[in-house]
Amino acid sequence: MTLLFCQDRQAAVPGILGGLGPLAHVQFEQRLIQRSAERGARCDQDHPVWLLVNGTTIPNRTESLQGTGPDCVPGLVRYAQLLERAGASFLVVTCNTAHGVYDQVQAQIGIPWIHLMACTSGHLRCTYPTVQRVGVLATDGTVQCGLYSHSLSQAGLTAMGFELNSPWQDLVMQSIYHPDWGIKTTGTRVSTQALTVLKQATAWLKSQGAEVVIAGCTELSVAFAQMSSLPLPWVDPLAVVADITLDLAWGYRSLPLWQAA
Amino acid sequence: MTLLFCQDRQAAVPGILGGLGPLAHVQFEQRLIQRSAERGARCDQDHPVWLLVNGTTIPNRTESLQGTGPDCVPGLVRYAQLLERAGASFLVVTCNTAHGVYDQVQAQIGIPWIHLMACTSGHLRCTYPTVQRVGVLATDGTVQCGLYSHSLSQAGLTAMGFELNSPWQDLVMQSIYHPDWGIKTTGTRVSTQALTVLKQATAWLKSQGAEVVIAGCTELSVAFAQMSSLPLPWVDPLAVVADITLDLAWGYRSLPLWQAA
Repeated sequence: MTLLFCQDRQAAVPGILGGLGPLAHVQFEQRLIQRSAERGARCDQDHPVWLLVNGTTIPNRTESLQGTGPDCVPGLVRYAQLLERAGASFLVVTCNTAHGVYDQVQAQIGIPWIHLMACTSGHLRCTYPTVQRVGVLATDGTVQCGLYSHSLSQAGLTAMGFELNSPWQDLVMQSIYHPDWGIKTTGTRVSTQALTVLKQATAWLKSQGAEVVIAGCTELSVAFAQMSSLPLPWVDPLAVVADITLDLAWGYRSLPLWQAA
Repeated sequence: MTLLFCQDRQAAVPGILGGLGPLAHVQFEQRLIQRSAERGARCDQDHPVWLLVNGTTIPNRTESLQGTGPDCVPGLVRYAQLLERAGASFLVVTCNTAHGVYDQVQAQIGIPWIHLMACTSGHLRCTYPTVQRVGVLATDGTVQCGLYSHSLSQAGLTAMGFELNSPWQDLVMQSIYHPDWGIKTTGTRVSTQALTVLKQATAWLKSQGAEVVIAGCTELSVAFAQMSSLPLPWVDPLAVVADITLDLAWGYRSLPLWQAA
């Protein structure tokens, strides 16, 4: 299916696969609108068209990667193909952990998936040219797949994070998934417990030599955005990809960029 | 095209036509997620699937209704049909003024468009059974078409608002459209000028006998949500439709409801 609604003004139509978790794509859209306004958008028509699906039927990505739950690949492929059929030119998946199955999904779809970790590593290299040691807070699935350590290493940077099953990593997981005070439960009203855990985890990474920290899970971006003081400067991968999304939509950059990590 | 991704668990798939203005559909999605969590959603998979298009190429709705700008009907129809083809079962348009062309658009699409004003009037009747006089703040286009006064009247309520070209109505329009301090320009960082104007306009409606006020433009919902004190209780039509959207998605209500005003 070809869309005719914006071909004369946009270079590309973003396709956003959201719902993983619930608030991540909403925060991503807010960031798109805010950056678009900062770039000069003054009325509705100055913002780009995009397509979005809230793909909440996709199984838990960490459990899928660990083999303890259903495979998340078929769902990701189905929603990506839906966006492609509806007219999307490229894909943004607002979930870090989902990038653990990047190759399998990319092989089954006809549009390029913008790789969150590769974009973030490239951004760090340009924005903090003297930084060498990068802290990463992420889910077990992202840690297990080495998603950030792989991309950071390819950019000549050293990733610092927590070991699987370590007390710190378990606390980070609880800040996301705890049924009472985890961010997936509380939504935008991030609990004091979650904020405290994440601040302490960041302080610990700093004490080990980290110079900057990546919010390597979209729920953590939600929490970090609400903190008035964090022991390290932090990078929001969703914000990095929001800028790239606008550049691609308006033709200021073109594909391929860093999508293969 | 038939979607198979959620037929076994959802009664209906919401199709959201957003981008009118930029933040309205984002606020609507936040409200969907928040209400969904309040109803018991505890993980990604507990939220409904929805489809969304950020339809920013649609011309200004007020100018279209007044005949001073391009017709907004073809764009609304095109994006609604896109959502329908992608699998949406019903349509929510997160723009009050667009409902001025409800009949023309509904006649050209195959899925029901949930009528914001009819839903809001029905909600007011149930929630404030003793209220008779309802203040309405809205754009010139919405006022000119009598969108709220018509629906409120059908629900046995009296609409109170500002006349077109009156000083108050001009101020309300400026709070939305002013190129420096209007909400369409400032986004979530609503200006003090806009907040002051809207508070004073609400106080004036109260002095004339209004017992509750409707934020009859999605930009006004953004502003009202940020005010700590308003002279009247206010109703957010987007919040009303968010609850109806969840009810329809999970099959707690079914169509038709109030979509014909």
